[in-house]
Amino acid sequence: MILASLAGRGRDGRLVVVSKDHLRCSPAAAVADTLQQALERWDRAAPVLERLAEDLERGEAPEASSFDIDKVLAPLPRCYQFLDGSAYLAHETLIRLARGSDLPAGFHEAPLMYQGASDSFLAPNAAIEVPDASWGFDFESEIAVVVDDVPQGVQRDEALDHIKLVMLLNDISLRHVMVGELSRGFGFVLSKPRSALAPLAVTPEALGAAWRDGKLHGRLLSLVNGMEIGAPDPGRDMRFDYGDLVAYAAKTRPLAAGTIIGGGVVENRDPNVGFASLDRKRAAETQSSGEAATRFLEPGDRVEIEFLDNHGNGPFGRIDQQVVATR
Amino acid sequence: MILASLAGRGRDGRLVVVSKDHLRCSPAAAVADTLQQALERWDRAAPVLERLAEDLERGEAPEASSFDIDKVLAPLPRCYQFLDGSAYLAHETLIRLARGSDLPAGFHEAPLMYQGASDSFLAPNAAIEVPDASWGFDFESEIAVVVDDVPQGVQRDEALDHIKLVMLLNDISLRHVMVGELSRGFGFVLSKPRSALAPLAVTPEALGAAWRDGKLHGRLLSLVNGMEIGAPDPGRDMRFDYGDLVAYAAKTRPLAAGTIIGGGVVENRDPNVGFASLDRKRAAETQSSGEAATRFLEPGDRVEIEFLDNHGNGPFGRIDQQVVATR
Repeated sequence: MILASLAGRGRDGRLVVVSKDHLRCSPAAAVADTLQQALERWDRAAPVLERLAEDLERGEAPEASSFDIDKVLAPLPRCYQFLDGSAYLAHETLIRLARGSDLPAGFHEAPLMYQGASDSFLAPNAAIEVPDASWGFDFESEIAVVVDDVPQGVQRDEALDHIKLVMLLNDISLRHVMVGELSRGFGFVLSKPRSALAPLAVTPEALGAAWRDGKLHGRLLSLVNGMEIGAPDPGRDMRFDYGDLVAYAAKTRPLAAGTIIGGGVVENRDPNVGFASLDRKRAAETQSSGEAATRFLEPGDRVEIEFLDNHGNGPFGRIDQQVVATR
Repeated sequence: MILASLAGRGRDGRLVVVSKDHLRCSPAAAVADTLQQALERWDRAAPVLERLAEDLERGEAPEASSFDIDKVLAPLPRCYQFLDGSAYLAHETLIRLARGSDLPAGFHEAPLMYQGASDSFLAPNAAIEVPDASWGFDFESEIAVVVDDVPQGVQRDEALDHIKLVMLLNDISLRHVMVGELSRGFGFVLSKPRSALAPLAVTPEALGAAWRDGKLHGRLLSLVNGMEIGAPDPGRDMRFDYGDLVAYAAKTRPLAAGTIIGGGVVENRDPNVGFASLDRKRAAETQSSGEAATRFLEPGDRVEIEFLDNHGNGPFGRIDQQVVATR
């Protein structure tokens, strides 16, 4: 099942079920006006949405219309919680080496995780607004999952069953703000402004063989100004799978339906596959030649992110953002 | 104007306007079903709510009923963002001294701030559930504000105008989880489970002289098992006022309506007024006698928190929570 949110009726948009070819959609209003509503009553909503998806494939959905993937909001235009983990340890290891700082305690035993802004997610084609280029704008290509209500204390296997949707996320990061902010020990607030989401939220089942072992397998392609920054496999070198990440987040409290859990910047140990952020590419450059040749984002740049499964299909659609100066 | 949320109609409750004596209320459904909705259209909603409040005082609100302050939800049962600052520097200074760690960089120039759980706030009388007493359960008595939509880059004076409501908050904290978590540098996730809110959200205007200079003045009373832990004045020794805190949070991104901004654990330099968390009391004990005599919360304990203005009135109602073991 493939879901998206169209503009209209307020900040949460209007939930639609999308056809497998991404060309048609059908409103889901009979069961839920918004994706958030569907997640809050998933057990009842999912079967209705599945039937709607089947009707749509057969050309039997009476309210179906053409779907313009370039005109959607983020699938969840906002939500009540976004927790972002760091599941790819090669990234953190190298970043810390480049910074000259130590690895955090228990680094290999439990994921690092912080809470990010979820009061508004940028649409897949929304501009990345830059009030101050000296902040060091960067993208981070990530895979994120969405859960229904998760009880406190859930274990990894059970946590996997609470994963209802998978999404593609650009966790926009301000590198020059981050260094100072992290040194203060309270995590990220200023250095992580609004993230963008790719057009489509997809159920694990609809991802087929790409979703297995609590991970997503394929190639996560990131381009800046049409030049490939990398295409690592998010299913490789992931120390903590999404079940681990959900269980970790729920260790001391329940998680409400609609919570998004990110896996962090994707990275493979093989540096030949490239990177999923400029920061990581710069760290590798610094390591190999003593200097970062790649600059951070500037107004006029374009960032494109897409996940491709092993058949070359892009189940989430594309993130395609222009970087623009504001004020 | 005084607002509360009654149980019913989903996770956000049902918005009511409450009379000044806290004995009567009137549904606000004509303008907004929920407090979140009202905040999203505050300029239109506030005048209608004000008229409703006036009608209620005159006994002319046709749908008025008695108000049972013991049966409410949190005023915002959930919201899209909760950013908690540390505006009382004596607290952090002493806590860090007790821990033997350094003060963060730029400590006096900019507030520390982290993003806390907002997917569900506990009702004022909800139990504090303790799955594991070794986590070191503590309360933190705080004053928090709620904003409407705040543009990125807002300055302090303008930020003050975006503060629409003031609330009383118990930021429940897991002290023994926190030490390890903070050492990893990503801030708080596991060590800050759900917070509780006092029954009533109050406009700055309705707080009268208690709200001035972007701060709330009075006594913040915290009791454990009926014994006073302290009654510091939240309007004193606050290095950053709520305008500063909102402006800081909005430095790199807009804040969506309904964002809650906390001021952190209240603390005065005068130790004779006592404390607003057990952690702080323990730090003072350690400093004066080399040992913390006060223990953290355990099942069976009761936590009561109330703010009193200079007339002895409690505009927010009381937080009154039992600590209970779960599982």
